[in-house]
Amino acid sequence: MKSIIWENSMLKLLDQTKLPLSIEYVDCKTYKEVAECIKNMVVRGAPAIGVAAAYGMVLAAKEFLEKSKNGFMDDLYSAGELLKSTRPTAVNLFWAVDKMYKTAKDNETASSKDIALILEEAAINIHEEDIALNKSIGEYGVKVVPEGAVIMTHCNAGALATAGYGTALGVIRTAFEKGILKKVFACETRPLLQGARLTAWELHQEKIPVTLITDSMAGYLMGQGQIDMVIVGADRIARNGDVANKIGTYSLAILANYHNIPFFVAAPYSTIDMGMATGKEIIVEERHGNEIRHIHGVEVVPGDIQTLNPAFDVTPGKLITGIITDKGILTAPYEKEIDRLFK
Amino acid sequence: MKSIIWENSMLKLLDQTKLPLSIEYVDCKTYKEVAECIKNMVVRGAPAIGVAAAYGMVLAAKEFLEKSKNGFMDDLYSAGELLKSTRPTAVNLFWAVDKMYKTAKDNETASSKDIALILEEAAINIHEEDIALNKSIGEYGVKVVPEGAVIMTHCNAGALATAGYGTALGVIRTAFEKGILKKVFACETRPLLQGARLTAWELHQEKIPVTLITDSMAGYLMGQGQIDMVIVGADRIARNGDVANKIGTYSLAILANYHNIPFFVAAPYSTIDMGMATGKEIIVEERHGNEIRHIHGVEVVPGDIQTLNPAFDVTPGKLITGIITDKGILTAPYEKEIDRLFK
Repeated sequence: MKSIIWENSMLKLLDQTKLPLSIEYVDCKTYKEVAECIKNMVVRGAPAIGVAAAYGMVLAAKEFLEKSKNGFMDDLYSAGELLKSTRPTAVNLFWAVDKMYKTAKDNETASSKDIALILEEAAINIHEEDIALNKSIGEYGVKVVPEGAVIMTHCNAGALATAGYGTALGVIRTAFEKGILKKVFACETRPLLQGARLTAWELHQEKIPVTLITDSMAGYLMGQGQIDMVIVGADRIARNGDVANKIGTYSLAILANYHNIPFFVAAPYSTIDMGMATGKEIIVEERHGNEIRHIHGVEVVPGDIQTLNPAFDVTPGKLITGIITDKGILTAPYEKEIDRLFK
Repeated sequence: MKSIIWENSMLKLLDQTKLPLSIEYVDCKTYKEVAECIKNMVVRGAPAIGVAAAYGMVLAAKEFLEKSKNGFMDDLYSAGELLKSTRPTAVNLFWAVDKMYKTAKDNETASSKDIALILEEAAINIHEEDIALNKSIGEYGVKVVPEGAVIMTHCNAGALATAGYGTALGVIRTAFEKGILKKVFACETRPLLQGARLTAWELHQEKIPVTLITDSMAGYLMGQGQIDMVIVGADRIARNGDVANKIGTYSLAILANYHNIPFFVAAPYSTIDMGMATGKEIIVEERHGNEIRHIHGVEVVPGDIQTLNPAFDVTPGKLITGIITDKGILTAPYEKEIDRLFK
């Protein structure tokens, strides 16, 4: 099941809000349609959002071909800003849009039509590179997975969250392929249930043993000695190793810490934001309260009940055993290792 | 809104599975109907289950009036066993049924009709006493609530979980009445959403400020310094202060501990099970996986996805700042204080 398909100059996005009971693709012919799909979480997961936004820039370029060269570049810039305004936390979105705009800028002397072709090639590269990165994360990550491991994960850092294969689920897939994985516990991940709808389903499809639990059961299972390690994805990593990821990750890290269970983050190294010294600077997206009041479209409590709906939280580096990247596993002190990696 | 009404020799139970969007009472004319309602969680909350079971014993006695005296007592015993088999974790259920049977036994020389009347009086006493106990818990508990407190709670230990007023919510109500409560954060409490459907709704009805969050957001809010204390109810308390309560309580206790936030349990002293030395002996009810696969009747993932659904967890006494009972607040070492209380 591919989350992102680029075909005949059109972006097809698997509608992840409808999975797993309905498998539908949304066709995007304009960059604004791509922006809407990112906002509404038709496409979600930091790496997948980055790839979708890159294609959004290609669509924008194709939409602006009739403009003057100045108009073309200005509109391309504005389209990038619109794409970047859709969701505030995942760094891959900004990274991909900036990379695409820079590619256009670097080729400014070419014709608009040629720039559009160059951008298309660049987007396809980002797309293909993401899968390779994930496989590399899997290879590094599997080294810290013990024989017969029972792994807990949160949200969906899988094939659907990326261009394919996955980050946290990439490690899990590699462990399964090597025969050392016993089973996975997937936390359902309220409010939008990505753990249930996407992770449990994605693993079950591939016959990787998975048991679905509610988020509130994680501590219980750890206390029963049933969990060997926790692996999650990341939406943004600060220079000091603080990690923004789906709401609930911070709680899981504290629970793992209390039970002396290794807690790993898996992410491509482009998730590291060198512009952010610590996680305190990371903007946490607040989403609509109806995601809590309603579940899967069904009203649970009346609309006048107040809610709070942060989509992410920030886990301090000190609670993280290691960050599994495509360039190797980083361990504390993260600042030093990250600086070394970027040099 | 009364969760339990005894009227014209009939038990009316507010259907808590349908709240808050639909307010319906289920009429129970037989003890088997009461047992069914406990099993299906039409009535839930340890103290409320105890009261309902007591009335179930009255209905049983009335059903067996035509029997011989021996048959009457035997059948009453069997009815009690059936009622006790409905849910394994809450001690109040066993306590109430045993108390009712003992009352019958103590009056064995009376006619069956008189025994039935005596049982009716006993059940009404248990019912009324529960409200008085809760008010007493509120009075003791409010002493540890700071001025302007923001309190987090889990599941529903409120008027609906008891005969009225509530245990954890009893403390919250008293704090609100005394003007020292700023607001409440209610964790929604998956899988059955008692925190959303019952607690948030119950408090909102009384204009007590409440904000609904998913269970996965608790750690985030604590990390932001937004929570002054946590108060939850209890289904069973072992002699050493270990507390069985709704799944997710143990995680909350660890999170509170990590953030140095006081973590209190509020429960009538009849929740203490002197027959259990530690929480390790407490049987944790496992419920059907469809409670996780479906939400509020809507299928989220297909039926062939494996789940685990423990309804409770056990929080060790060492993570509990104090146990607020109707006889005062117990603190560690719990074994000593509990032994003293029961002497």
